[in-house]
Amino acid sequence: RPCIDEEDVDDAWQDEEYFGSYGSLKLHLEMLSDKPRTETYREVVLSNRHCLEGRVVMDLGCGTGIISLFCARLAEPAAVYAVEASPMADQTRELVTRNGCQSVVSVFKGRVEELALPGKVDVLVSEWMGNCLLFEFMVESVLLARDRWLKEGGMMWPSSAALSLVPCQAEEEYRRKIVFWEKPYGLDFSCLKSLAQKEFFSKPKFSHEMKPEDCLSAPCDVLTLDMHSLQIPDLEKLKGEFCFRVEKSGTFHGFAAWFSVQFQSLDEVGPTLELNTGPHHPLTHWKQTLLMLDSPVFLHQGDSLSGMILLHRNPVWRRHMTLSLHWTIRSTQDSEACKTGQKSFPMWR
Amino acid sequence: RPCIDEEDVDDAWQDEEYFGSYGSLKLHLEMLSDKPRTETYREVVLSNRHCLEGRVVMDLGCGTGIISLFCARLAEPAAVYAVEASPMADQTRELVTRNGCQSVVSVFKGRVEELALPGKVDVLVSEWMGNCLLFEFMVESVLLARDRWLKEGGMMWPSSAALSLVPCQAEEEYRRKIVFWEKPYGLDFSCLKSLAQKEFFSKPKFSHEMKPEDCLSAPCDVLTLDMHSLQIPDLEKLKGEFCFRVEKSGTFHGFAAWFSVQFQSLDEVGPTLELNTGPHHPLTHWKQTLLMLDSPVFLHQGDSLSGMILLHRNPVWRRHMTLSLHWTIRSTQDSEACKTGQKSFPMWR
Ligand SMILES: [Ca+2]
Ligand SMILES: [Ca+2]
Repeated sequence: RPCIDEEDVDDAWQDEEYFGSYGSLKLHLEMLSDKPRTETYREVVLSNRHCLEGRVVMDLGCGTGIISLFCARLAEPAAVYAVEASPMADQTRELVTRNGCQSVVSVFKGRVEELALPGKVDVLVSEWMGNCLLFEFMVESVLLARDRWLKEGGMMWPSSAALSLVPCQAEEEYRRKIVFWEKPYGLDFSCLKSLAQKEFFSKPKFSHEMKPEDCLSAPCDVLTLDMHSLQIPDLEKLKGEFCFRVEKSGTFHGFAAWFSVQFQSLDEVGPTLELNTGPHHPLTHWKQTLLMLDSPVFLHQGDSLSGMILLHRNPVWRRHMTLSLHWTIRSTQDSEACKTGQKSFPMWR
Repeated sequence: RPCIDEEDVDDAWQDEEYFGSYGSLKLHLEMLSDKPRTETYREVVLSNRHCLEGRVVMDLGCGTGIISLFCARLAEPAAVYAVEASPMADQTRELVTRNGCQSVVSVFKGRVEELALPGKVDVLVSEWMGNCLLFEFMVESVLLARDRWLKEGGMMWPSSAALSLVPCQAEEEYRRKIVFWEKPYGLDFSCLKSLAQKEFFSKPKFSHEMKPEDCLSAPCDVLTLDMHSLQIPDLEKLKGEFCFRVEKSGTFHGFAAWFSVQFQSLDEVGPTLELNTGPHHPLTHWKQTLLMLDSPVFLHQGDSLSGMILLHRNPVWRRHMTLSLHWTIRSTQDSEACKTGQKSFPMWR
């Protein structure tokens, strides 16, 4: 355990900052304006409406209460417990009443650890996903809620989650942040290139909008989490492997990461629905996360790129983690050639 | 003077935060990547190259030293004093050497108040402009430098500056931040509209990219500053007037503000060059600033919109100010009709 002083440890979850940011409308507007995200949750409720009849649902971190309202308006659950720790909860109560759902939806303002519900629930629904799936670790609250409040055999929505990775080009990003320094306005600023690389590429770039054609290979699910069996201690270190076959020659500037989540049907024969935030799907507010290499590498069609990914949760700053990548490139053109690389990205501590 | 405790006052200039942000490359990259901005300064040096021969130039807040390097490479000044308070100054020294300008350009690391130069200068050039021209009040450092180091009859670049204003449409902004709450996903979220208005429209929106066709009138210069005669105490309260004639009917969502700066020629007959950050000119990194009304008003062609603007510098937080607008709309259609309005925008305190 790293040596830090007590004052710091008190704030290891940075809850004031975290919940404070959900007290204003900005983040809620961003999430609600994200149609692929919000409509997937609506679709999940709608396609399970018959099975939801008479069931009890918990909507954890409900924000404005949109998912709870979908449940109350599109199905006939016995009760919906809408749980929100941020000051937004007061608005949520009003929204529930305004939309005539007060007999079904009850808003509980508070954190999951202090929650006192009337009883256990049949379904636990939550939109807890962050950048690279886990960032900010709201998932821990969801697992706590599951272990305390979900009935035996109850349903988690999402029921599974995956982190996807792909080697990619990021020509524009590289040109604007690195190549730029070579000769701006006819001057030699190239001595700033290594500084730029450290400043811009040490951490992941969130909200990167990549094009499908930037992918040098088919993406690969490097981690999959079963939300029914996942345990909180599992989150400390998650490890995955990948093996990509390069489909088109191009410059390997880095990896792009994103997530998908799946929603199992309550009814065994119903379809599993998915929200996929990857470049081959409609853009969400998460966009993609770009992990830039220190130096780009040219890859040829047919080359293989294999390796592993490690997500190491920060033992002190509980909402943070470090994402590490190790890889080996094997050339088809020269079967002797083999290049290895590795890089670790703090997010953020 | 507002009542605040001593700890706060110590930080009234927030210099650590301010200069710290210029220690990393991010802001410098943004400024250098702004071609209209950077090329205007290059053009000013280039078109004055004959007059710069043998002159002494100070480049205040030089950043990476780009303007100093333009002077040394495109003209033959006797000396250029490149002054930078942020840690960037160390990089600037290296850039000067790399570009073979060390015999002309000397880098001085430090704040203008502590500056010890070899002597006075003929030209004081600086890129000090912020949002709504004055935000962050770097201009005060420029005036201090002028009073202490500029020779009698020396030249200030820019030599004058203006703040421009125009009544405008901002349909998309209004739709996304306010109208959105009316019926998202078929639900009634309209009780959040007043909260949204407070959260999103109380302060100016920086980096607004407006289209020329969003202007409901020709713009108006509401403030003009002569950089040779402007005094530091003048900055406490600046007042301007405007009178717009509505050129096309449309929804008056707010005012857009931006600035222009002019560079007088050293030689009396040379052209005055201008950097204009308005919507009718190429986009710069400042873009425009949007000042949204609480409620939009429909204006008809021919209506007049007159009033005043007041920039009130924060007496405690010296990099901040409040921008206040008072206006009267007079209708051509109904000569009796007359609507007044007013709104104050803190930036940020
Ligand atoms: Ca989230
Ligand atoms: Ca500036």
